[in-house]
Amino acid sequence: MKIAFPKIRSPWLIEPDTKVRLEKLSTATRGNFHDEDAAKKELEKHRVKMAPLQEKLYAGAQKSLLIVLQGMDTAGKDGTISHIFTGINPQGCDVTPFKVPTPLEARHDFLWRAHAAVPPRGMIGIFNRSHYEDVLSPRVHGMVSDKAAKERFAEINAFEEMLVRNDVVVLKFFLHISHAEQGRRLQSRLDDPSKHWKISPADFAERKFWPKYVSAYESILENTSKKHAPWFVIPSDHKWHRNVAISRILVDALDGMDLQYPVSTVDISKLKA
Amino acid sequence: MKIAFPKIRSPWLIEPDTKVRLEKLSTATRGNFHDEDAAKKELEKHRVKMAPLQEKLYAGAQKSLLIVLQGMDTAGKDGTISHIFTGINPQGCDVTPFKVPTPLEARHDFLWRAHAAVPPRGMIGIFNRSHYEDVLSPRVHGMVSDKAAKERFAEINAFEEMLVRNDVVVLKFFLHISHAEQGRRLQSRLDDPSKHWKISPADFAERKFWPKYVSAYESILENTSKKHAPWFVIPSDHKWHRNVAISRILVDALDGMDLQYPVSTVDISKLKA
Repeated sequence: MKIAFPKIRSPWLIEPDTKVRLEKLSTATRGNFHDEDAAKKELEKHRVKMAPLQEKLYAGAQKSLLIVLQGMDTAGKDGTISHIFTGINPQGCDVTPFKVPTPLEARHDFLWRAHAAVPPRGMIGIFNRSHYEDVLSPRVHGMVSDKAAKERFAEINAFEEMLVRNDVVVLKFFLHISHAEQGRRLQSRLDDPSKHWKISPADFAERKFWPKYVSAYESILENTSKKHAPWFVIPSDHKWHRNVAISRILVDALDGMDLQYPVSTVDISKLKA
Repeated sequence: MKIAFPKIRSPWLIEPDTKVRLEKLSTATRGNFHDEDAAKKELEKHRVKMAPLQEKLYAGAQKSLLIVLQGMDTAGKDGTISHIFTGINPQGCDVTPFKVPTPLEARHDFLWRAHAAVPPRGMIGIFNRSHYEDVLSPRVHGMVSDKAAKERFAEINAFEEMLVRNDVVVLKFFLHISHAEQGRRLQSRLDDPSKHWKISPADFAERKFWPKYVSAYESILENTSKKHAPWFVIPSDHKWHRNVAISRILVDALDGMDLQYPVSTVDISKLKA
């Protein structure tokens, strides 16, 4: 089995087969940035680097990049997409939001809709939530037993490994916020009438299950962070830190993919404009 | 039949049921811009206006926007997408390139794959080429008769009208370049080794059929520019003019769609963070 995964060094990488205690992992670090502006300037640099790399990825059509975004409600999945990927050519980027399964999706195995949405060679695919939802909320609410969860982890690992063997680079991000920060974000939606349309009573109801979600995520991270498809736990209380930390990993990954423009096989000498 | 189409005034609009002679329509105008920089500044303004309009379109999920891009080879369909839509949230934007039909697509009617790619409410959908390809190259090469073309025009008009009645705003752009400009663009690909990978011998072969493509496009424009789904013939020899002319129409269209954020039906008083 040949897996050429780009080498990525990051303080937020979860090493395979390690115990994870989310409360021990920072949510609020500011990284090396002494203020928000410094982080934003760095993000802008990453975006400038990403554009030509994406063009090469698209033109070469040899590999693809799958980005999985998970996190507690309000952790900032939508914001991550809008801040990091606004500036990328939408022709080379597909975003798939995973919502409550449709009746058809619900009649399939849980990986079916994820597989259908995998980015083809040349594309960046972003999963806004993902197949990991199926080892999350159902587990918190007792619909998936520990034994069934273990089976699903094995299925997920096999699935992702198969993707990687087929030239998909898989990067998974857990946007890590504190319980207090979630409270502040929910409260700010209540306080600001222009944000009322965003309010889902489910977010408030699920907040009560916070400790169970923490355990479910720890179990996910411990069982599915693999060398070929690693998880990164991104400190996300500061949105600007979240953005710049993720974009750095993406630039490093694209950079490490050894992307090449296609070689022309056309006999140029025979063509006349 | 209720069709609420945004009012768009543009010098590039093709009025329904008018005779079209492409050689009478400008390819090289510079609009009101005395230089490229002025046009680029204006484009930037449009992009800034577009972002919150797109957010509202996405949040409201009541209407969608379908953008059809057509043009001769090298007219700049890809460049239009990268210049105008880089800066838009990719979560709200799907780009569909229409290539040579797959075996499955070829076994269906010509509108099948187009229908499947129509943007759902809330989304911007960009067709890079489109169902108009089926009244274009096959017609130039005698595989579709005039009679068959007329039938397809009627089918296209009925299809697009149905979309509009179902809250899709349909805008169609023909990127209009001169024969000489196409020659320059093809030549520049030959001259620059870093562009060789972009060269398709088909582009050079099809160039010989230029007058037939002109007729086929005139026929398309005459038969399918409708009040509810208009064509715009965009002078595109200057790429910066093309970009700013299209982005202006898009901003006007989004502005005229009377977009609204959803109204919250949640009883806020019962929620606590």
